Amino acid sequence: MRKRNLKILRTKQGCVALAAILMSAVVTAPHAAEPAVAASPNGITLPSDYRNWRLIASSQRNDNNTLRVILGNDTAIKAARTGNTNPWPDGAILCKLVWKDAIHEHWETAVIPGEFVHAEFMVKNSGKYRETGGWGFARWTGMDQRPYGKDAAFAQECFGCHTPMKNNDYVFTHPAKLP
Amino acid sequence: MRKRNLKILRTKQGCVALAAILMSAVVTAPHAAEPAVAASPNGITLPSDYRNWRLIASSQRNDNNTLRVILGNDTAIKAARTGNTNPWPDGAILCKLVWKDAIHEHWETAVIPGEFVHAEFMVKNSGKYRETGGWGFARWTGMDQRPYGKDAAFAQECFGCHTPMKNNDYVFTHPAKLP
Repeated sequence: MRKRNLKILRTKQGCVALAAILMSAVVTAPHAAEPAVAASPNGITLPSDYRNWRLIASSQRNDNNTLRVILGNDTAIKAARTGNTNPWPDGAILCKLVWKDAIHEHWETAVIPGEFVHAEFMVKNSGKYRETGGWGFARWTGMDQRPYGKDAAFAQECFGCHTPMKNNDYVFTHPAKLP
Repeated sequence: MRKRNLKILRTKQGCVALAAILMSAVVTAPHAAEPAVAASPNGITLPSDYRNWRLIASSQRNDNNTLRVILGNDTAIKAARTGNTNPWPDGAILCKLVWKDAIHEHWETAVIPGEFVHAEFMVKNSGKYRETGGWGFARWTGMDQRPYGKDAAFAQECFGCHTPMKNNDYVFTHPAKLP
């Protein structure tokens, strides 16, 4: 009788475990169904939660007619809010979201985000990325998030463009003033 | 002896309680020391955590040379990401942060946030703010966050300007496309 009870208990535990596995499968299914975003040729992977990162600044470029918003992960936000951005601390990640300029349908002097162009990332790791100013660069293009660059050498292109900002830790972005 | 022990216990409890109060005072002191931001003349108070809200869109206005970033509270973000913004749900709050245009020192065709101008809010409550399209308006100006408007009638000025957007629930902002 004791053995039988144990068997029932085991069966119950099994059911609970099975239910937990099934629940877990249901909860993770939508993510599993999403097409995976390929890594950048230098091995940097797309941070999964960048859409939830907080604001650092914005910009609008008249040379290529784009609007930009710069977000940061928690480490970057802490650095930006305490003025510790030269250098940025290891672990900081900056994300620049870029859209083509569009014109607001009811305010013709207002430039608004049109077609999405790309998301660019700068990952601070002063040891790992010593050859490119302590920053790992990565970019995913378009709504289908295609990684930019044929091979890892693409980062030299990014770094070259950031060289004028050497005295600002190679970062163009200045955190926007906020009360 | 039992009475004495009880007294010691009471004293210990008192010490613990006092310590808890002191700890609480230390933890809350930085906030308490900040100057309080006055409410808008229509009674809307400044949301304390708007700097941590997530991104909805950005814009740049050539008529008054300002850069803008539009953030939303959790209710607004959920609505924006699921395409439920016409109308926006009750509880949604939109925050528009505005800076004067400045020019980047190493990229002269890049407009970046200069002096902070103001933070504007639209609070959706279709019952409470029925007379202004279901939206409560509020604005705090400058780094010292002075509430805008002499009296509650200032909201008519805001609402008047938003009238062309009646078919978009009186909101100029279109959530920016993101992958």
